[in-house]
Amino acid sequence: MIDSDVFLAFSTYTTIVVLKMLLMGPMTGYYRMTRKAFSNPEDMAIHGRNEEDKKKFLRTDPDVERVRRCHQNDLENIVPFVVIGLLYALSGPALSTALLHFRVFVGSRFLHTVAYLLPLPQPCRGVSWIVGLLSTFSMGYRLLSTSLVI
Amino acid sequence: MIDSDVFLAFSTYTTIVVLKMLLMGPMTGYYRMTRKAFSNPEDMAIHGRNEEDKKKFLRTDPDVERVRRCHQNDLENIVPFVVIGLLYALSGPALSTALLHFRVFVGSRFLHTVAYLLPLPQPCRGVSWIVGLLSTFSMGYRLLSTSLVI
Amino acid sequence: MIDSDVFLAFSTYTTIVVLKMLLMGPMTGYYRMTRKAFSNPEDMAIHGRNEEDKKKFLRTDPDVERVRRCHQNDLENIVPFVVIGLLYALSGPALSTALLHFRVFVGSRFLHTVAYLLPLPQPCRGVSWIVGLLSTFSMGYRLLSTSLVI
Repeated sequence: MIDSDVFLAFSTYTTIVVLKMLLMGPMTGYYRMTRKAFSNPEDMAIHGRNEEDKKKFLRTDPDVERVRRCHQNDLENIVPFVVIGLLYALSGPALSTALLHFRVFVGSRFLHTVAYLLPLPQPCRGVSWIVGLLSTFSMGYRLLSTSLVI
Repeated sequence: MIDSDVFLAFSTYTTIVVLKMLLMGPMTGYYRMTRKAFSNPEDMAIHGRNEEDKKKFLRTDPDVERVRRCHQNDLENIVPFVVIGLLYALSGPALSTALLHFRVFVGSRFLHTVAYLLPLPQPCRGVSWIVGLLSTFSMGYRLLSTSLVI
Repeated sequence: MIDSDVFLAFSTYTTIVVLKMLLMGPMTGYYRMTRKAFSNPEDMAIHGRNEEDKKKFLRTDPDVERVRRCHQNDLENIVPFVVIGLLYALSGPALSTALLHFRVFVGSRFLHTVAYLLPLPQPCRGVSWIVGLLSTFSMGYRLLSTSLVI
């Protein structure tokens, strides 16, 4: 099953969307440095030489918080997709149905990130979030309806 | 091994508990809308027509923060369960032992959510959290004691 | 493939690093109790008998927040490692290359935790974070360059 086309497709889409999630970390770092908004006193050794600067830069910034909320939303949605998607890919679905689920999910998450960071006006972000949720729930429904063992 | 009863049971319990975790997202949305407490200015286009409303609704609310803490605790505990549980299910445990671990964990997480959201008086939430932790640690111990390759 | 040496090595290193991540939960609890800084009113039944104490202990504490940021960073980095690492281990890499990736990542995360909690002066924490990222990206690059199916 691990050599099946469905599993290879799952592997590819998962790698892409997880690497995208991982890039939110460096992006937070970039925003922290350009906005000079840090959460640890030791992070300011380079940026603020004197004590006054250090206090000034130990703050929250709206742009940094926006990236962090986007990252958190990724964690909350991409991780369940990976888990449910893995079990779904191993449960022997049709390739075309599986590809539809994976593509819709990955597309919706890229849209979500763009909508969150620009930001685009609502309901862009809300709709892309819900489309991703529906894709994961649809795979979960199939799993529970075909392989229930309790 | 992927067709074994243990793996099918893991698949079922994991799907249930991960979908439960995923539902915390819409629940946060529901609390945000009923409590009118948002974290993004663009989310208030429908709710607050004028500028004054927008400032008023850009706030934190104790109920919203409670749901978010519950969601975060799910991420911190359910994700390790899925990872350790997957490797455990593939390591060939007895079905009855595996079922015990999965059932105790999933039951403890549903109890945890109820105890967090109502809220029930402590130590209900604390005990359900620790019981879930012990289930994951017990599977992790078995994995490390049987298949250590470094 | 699940019985291969690479998969067994992945299983061992993943179990170790995920159990380490899971221990951040009890560590947060320990800091909350010793610093008397709680986020739920019901958590103070034992610690603060009277109403005044309850208000006093419902606060944030710099040490507690530090452990929580470290835990969050673990979630943001260890979960992608597990996902990418699993697919990588199933893609048939050389054992020595795989071991190098797993060891570098796990070592970097233990260093990261020590650097965050003591804290060590920067760039200790920054470097250990980036080394872990590079290990995950390196596995992701191999996955995408060898098994791309879209």
